[in-house]
Amino acid sequence: MKMTDTVRAILANYDGETPGVKAGLARILMQGRLGGTGKVVILPVDQGFEHGPARSFGANPAAYDPQYHYQLAIDAEMSAYAAPLGMLEAGADAFAGQIPTILKVNSANSLMPPEAPKTQAITASVDDALRLGCSAIGFTIYPGSSASLEMFSDIAEMRREAAAKGLASVIWSYPRGEALDKDGETAIDVTAYAAQIAALLGAHIVKIKLSTDVLSQPEAKKVYEAEKIDISTQAARVAHCMQAAFGGRRIVVFSGGASKGADAVYDDARAIRDGGGNGSIIGRNSFQRPRTEALDLLRKIQDIYLGQA
Amino acid sequence: MKMTDTVRAILANYDGETPGVKAGLARILMQGRLGGTGKVVILPVDQGFEHGPARSFGANPAAYDPQYHYQLAIDAEMSAYAAPLGMLEAGADAFAGQIPTILKVNSANSLMPPEAPKTQAITASVDDALRLGCSAIGFTIYPGSSASLEMFSDIAEMRREAAAKGLASVIWSYPRGEALDKDGETAIDVTAYAAQIAALLGAHIVKIKLSTDVLSQPEAKKVYEAEKIDISTQAARVAHCMQAAFGGRRIVVFSGGASKGADAVYDDARAIRDGGGNGSIIGRNSFQRPRTEALDLLRKIQDIYLGQA
Amino acid sequence: MKMTDTVRAILANYDGETPGVKAGLARILMQGRLGGTGKVVILPVDQGFEHGPARSFGANPAAYDPQYHYQLAIDAEMSAYAAPLGMLEAGADAFAGQIPTILKVNSANSLMPPEAPKTQAITASVDDALRLGCSAIGFTIYPGSSASLEMFSDIAEMRREAAAKGLASVIWSYPRGEALDKDGETAIDVTAYAAQIAALLGAHIVKIKLSTDVLSQPEAKKVYEAEKIDISTQAARVAHCMQAAFGGRRIVVFSGGASKGADAVYDDARAIRDGGGNGSIIGRNSFQRPRTEALDLLRKIQDIYLGQA
Amino acid sequence: MKMTDTVRAILANYDGETPGVKAGLARILMQGRLGGTGKVVILPVDQGFEHGPARSFGANPAAYDPQYHYQLAIDAEMSAYAAPLGMLEAGADAFAGQIPTILKVNSANSLMPPEAPKTQAITASVDDALRLGCSAIGFTIYPGSSASLEMFSDIAEMRREAAAKGLASVIWSYPRGEALDKDGETAIDVTAYAAQIAALLGAHIVKIKLSTDVLSQPEAKKVYEAEKIDISTQAARVAHCMQAAFGGRRIVVFSGGASKGADAVYDDARAIRDGGGNGSIIGRNSFQRPRTEALDLLRKIQDIYLGQA
Amino acid sequence: MKMTDTVRAILANYDGETPGVKAGLARILMQGRLGGTGKVVILPVDQGFEHGPARSFGANPAAYDPQYHYQLAIDAEMSAYAAPLGMLEAGADAFAGQIPTILKVNSANSLMPPEAPKTQAITASVDDALRLGCSAIGFTIYPGSSASLEMFSDIAEMRREAAAKGLASVIWSYPRGEALDKDGETAIDVTAYAAQIAALLGAHIVKIKLSTDVLSQPEAKKVYEAEKIDISTQAARVAHCMQAAFGGRRIVVFSGGASKGADAVYDDARAIRDGGGNGSIIGRNSFQRPRTEALDLLRKIQDIYLGQA
Repeated sequence: MKMTDTVRAILANYDGETPGVKAGLARILMQGRLGGTGKVVILPVDQGFEHGPARSFGANPAAYDPQYHYQLAIDAEMSAYAAPLGMLEAGADAFAGQIPTILKVNSANSLMPPEAPKTQAITASVDDALRLGCSAIGFTIYPGSSASLEMFSDIAEMRREAAAKGLASVIWSYPRGEALDKDGETAIDVTAYAAQIAALLGAHIVKIKLSTDVLSQPEAKKVYEAEKIDISTQAARVAHCMQAAFGGRRIVVFSGGASKGADAVYDDARAIRDGGGNGSIIGRNSFQRPRTEALDLLRKIQDIYLGQA
Repeated sequence: MKMTDTVRAILANYDGETPGVKAGLARILMQGRLGGTGKVVILPVDQGFEHGPARSFGANPAAYDPQYHYQLAIDAEMSAYAAPLGMLEAGADAFAGQIPTILKVNSANSLMPPEAPKTQAITASVDDALRLGCSAIGFTIYPGSSASLEMFSDIAEMRREAAAKGLASVIWSYPRGEALDKDGETAIDVTAYAAQIAALLGAHIVKIKLSTDVLSQPEAKKVYEAEKIDISTQAARVAHCMQAAFGGRRIVVFSGGASKGADAVYDDARAIRDGGGNGSIIGRNSFQRPRTEALDLLRKIQDIYLGQA
Repeated sequence: MKMTDTVRAILANYDGETPGVKAGLARILMQGRLGGTGKVVILPVDQGFEHGPARSFGANPAAYDPQYHYQLAIDAEMSAYAAPLGMLEAGADAFAGQIPTILKVNSANSLMPPEAPKTQAITASVDDALRLGCSAIGFTIYPGSSASLEMFSDIAEMRREAAAKGLASVIWSYPRGEALDKDGETAIDVTAYAAQIAALLGAHIVKIKLSTDVLSQPEAKKVYEAEKIDISTQAARVAHCMQAAFGGRRIVVFSGGASKGADAVYDDARAIRDGGGNGSIIGRNSFQRPRTEALDLLRKIQDIYLGQA
Repeated sequence: MKMTDTVRAILANYDGETPGVKAGLARILMQGRLGGTGKVVILPVDQGFEHGPARSFGANPAAYDPQYHYQLAIDAEMSAYAAPLGMLEAGADAFAGQIPTILKVNSANSLMPPEAPKTQAITASVDDALRLGCSAIGFTIYPGSSASLEMFSDIAEMRREAAAKGLASVIWSYPRGEALDKDGETAIDVTAYAAQIAALLGAHIVKIKLSTDVLSQPEAKKVYEAEKIDISTQAARVAHCMQAAFGGRRIVVFSGGASKGADAVYDDARAIRDGGGNGSIIGRNSFQRPRTEALDLLRKIQDIYLGQA
Repeated sequence: MKMTDTVRAILANYDGETPGVKAGLARILMQGRLGGTGKVVILPVDQGFEHGPARSFGANPAAYDPQYHYQLAIDAEMSAYAAPLGMLEAGADAFAGQIPTILKVNSANSLMPPEAPKTQAITASVDDALRLGCSAIGFTIYPGSSASLEMFSDIAEMRREAAAKGLASVIWSYPRGEALDKDGETAIDVTAYAAQIAALLGAHIVKIKLSTDVLSQPEAKKVYEAEKIDISTQAARVAHCMQAAFGGRRIVVFSGGASKGADAVYDDARAIRDGGGNGSIIGRNSFQRPRTEALDLLRKIQDIYLGQA
């Protein structure tokens, strides 16, 4: 498929970056059913690390096999597949060249003592990503954590190395830490701030959560109210987050969270689309469903982004 | 001996890895009496570091000599011998080429203050393993410890270097730490999680403990019960751990723990065999017995894996 | 424009430095409407990192777009534009060669837990600055913080690398930390000390805040009183800070702080001019105003430095 | 002197090591009056660092001069001289080639706050040892200290570098730390454990203290009693420590501790000899005595090792 | 001027060191009015970092200019000038070749919270010293501080690099830390210990404070009393410190401390001379006086070392 003008326009926002980074972004933007539209649907499978195997794959035991996910992403005509080292290695050879991959280079787990600082272990390198033929690396930051400054420095270094070696960088920006309560983690002011930080750190693709209309930071609250910034609907909040990502100059994808009913998933996708977001990253809502059901759901989501649903 | 189809099938799970890694795995899989069957029995001798010399070798003083263990592994026709630096160095030259060796690159000891974070010292390097002619490096992680993220990062780096230099990596994955009580360390949900983490970190061989039917993590417990995952027998739990190790795409060996009666050891081996595990790693139960008794026991275990007992 | 004697005289203070450093300083000193006068007005945009996007750009939404700031600095005929990595990357190609840029290589944020040590994350490198065609790097230190020694060591290393690679170094020296109360952070004795530390660390351009007539350190207070050092007016305090910056051998620029009325901004500029300071670094007071208003204000400030207002 | 069969047999235990390591050991084993016997008497002078100059040399002021110790070791026909960087540097040129030297690469001091973790500063490098013409490096570990894992990692790295560059490694293994009381530090079970750890870390020469018949670790005590391990005499305990050092495959030397009467020193030497130890490392008991008295004492100790006293 | 026999004799104590180190020492020992006598008077200006600009230079505002100090050291015919990076850079080119310089590579400040561990920031490198044409680097250690082990390791590394690159090393050894009270910091036993540690770390020039007759460490006190070590006069204490510096094999200079009357400064110099010390390092007592007064005072001190006063 020839590169579309839409994709060319997005890539122009990355002028000055290495051709390798642009090529990586282009592979993702031109892949699958949404290829060429500027929209993406990405499959992330890091829940085995984050929550353990049974909580992740017990509902759909075929998913214990890493190759299941490669095949799902390919058959669902998705844009890319993101996973930690071991998961990618177990299929990188078999599926080489069939789907763009994103190597998740740091990982959290739920066995850690709750009082430990919120951070992740670096579990893979840029060279691992090159060796495995990936198009990008993925890195999680926790703005608000006492360990976040070190996370920022780590991704700054890995991003630089990745770009120099021709790989794009995706930053998962999830506010979490001692100074944030549970509501604050998804508050719109904090979520937009998380998008801004990821963009400032040089993310080529920013990944954030959908937000609520809570305003968590008192200093920020004053400004939202004074400037009457619209945060009343999910679509408005998505639009505000796009603004926070350099006025739309950066690709932003939104994660869906825990398994839920298909209708809720579709509502999310419509809000992202209506707010001008670039797409969805859908893990548990796809691989925890039986395969046919997941394929249907993913197709429906693509329909939404294509304006057909 | 020509490589068997069974071993070829196992090695195919590592496609994309360097030929050196596959060669290392092949040496272990083709060695000794179980060579070619896809099953392994490995001799680990790191108890001198972990528990001190008298507790380890006092019952069988011939074992103070590092060369005793090389000879035992060779005479018992085992698959490989794993030990810390000093132990391997004291026989690497004398026994060069007679038995595949695994250099344990980190080590714990029991003189540490109990309140210190649970971790191990890195006591050897990948280059040490190359110099000593090893087939693999071995590394312990303690999922659940406040120091575990650093352990994960360390093994991720050493694994990468080892694979690039043609060595396989064995990860000892032993849950331990502030957030786990004694029962939790061997609970089936935590043990399967430990297998998953080792596999995700890129272990070529995963080493875990046999587990109990305890479910320790409340969130996981719900899933085990909802999905009716069978954890009622040791064989069922072994099978579940194989699932957690990428649906059987990774070699998993199980450790036997403290010295015990021969029958209990045989029962363990039968459960591992019946659950589809790849074999046993047997330290204290072999070298703390008199040599002839140990040879008999190891032969009987091999009989079990060969389906002859 | 040919280099003026004034600029030659300033550059002579940097004899012994690499030609690259001098070239970087010369680019800034010869740029824009103040070019050649030895005075500078610099646009810094790191508030998105420090305070979040809405607090920074909500009042003037056009400013969410990084290219807005490049254009503002160019149209206002300013001396240089300073920003973190992502901000510069989003326009470095489009505006290459039109305005000298300063890459801010460390960054703070306001999501951190208040009890965390006062420091910043290193979020960019000297090589990033080279790649983006910058004239200098910028680095913040917090003299007084328990983390300040590490900040000093970090900038010492980055400064050395930058100078060797032909880039000047700007140090933002902002006293902050456990041993300083709010008044102490802007006290004249502490501010002059901050200028001295930046100069001793090898800053080519020192950036400090305007100070108050408070004397915070008891040992210093005695000397100020005994020696009758004039700190009664802002101009006198600026002059004292120039003294602290090697008797005027280093370029010192002063920051304006939070948004305020235009007259207060002009008063600041006059005090800086009358005290012999080298100029202003004006962020929120420019980009949080509507563009035309900002252009007027910046022109008026330049008039003041040119002695025309 | 031609290499003796005894020394050849000892060196054979290091087969697989670099020729440089063997050469270093051979220089020490073939030096002085005990040369060729497999026994050694070594002069260590690190008390200036550990206890300060007056406590170390006040009793014999000639010993303030570093060259005093070179001359003493040479005139007493000792096997080697071990000291920190400054001490060796002050005579390395004058005495080049006259006595094998061991560069102590880490050092403790008694000015540290008592609550600081028990560890030492790394004060010299392998390259320093090469430059000064040394035969070995020396490194102290404190098994039992909360800082011990880091010490183990440090010596593992330095040992590897030293061996690759042709230098032997001597490990001073002194149990000390939060989990050990004063009696525990010299208990036989802990001392044997310390010898085992040093050997496992790859020490070519193990240096431990003479032990008491205390059994400090409850788990170990059970085994000593169950296996009836003889710890009743100092000679029996020396023999047990040799066992713990790979069944005698590693050279073990024993330190004498604080200044004491000559008879007590001779008793120690006889116990080491009778237990099969490789010799003594005698600091304060030699250089804190007047020179003639020290020469007599050292000669008498050599007589004991030669079976002549 | 031809090298004198006195200087040759001192340099012979450094046999084995690189010719570059000896050349650096020779430049200092042959410089100025004391050139060739084996005595030195050095100008250190790091008070701007340690105490801030006004406390350092307020009494003599000409001293805010770094070039003032170069000129003072030259006009007073001193042996060398020592200062932090920024101070040296601001005159290194203008005064190249006129006075040996010592780059102070670490620095303390008085804005730090009082409860922070006593240490300094590393603020310059060996390569900086080379670039600036220095003869030596200078490094402060705080024996007794919980951070001292790290300081020792840092200077060990920098000293090694400096010597390899042809620069001498000066160690400022100032006891300070949690285990020392104010009296202990200048007690003679602790001061001599500080000199010993600096010498053991490989200092080519040891810089300590003049001491009191206090004995601070109980174990040391016993030895001083038992051995009747003379500490009754400042000259006797200087002689004891020379003993602690390898029996006089290392150059030792003594600092004068805070500004005081000229007669007290002369008394200090006489005690250093009579005790066999190598000279004075005089900062505040020179640059905080008016220039003519300082020149007179420095000349008088030189007279004392020349035996003319």
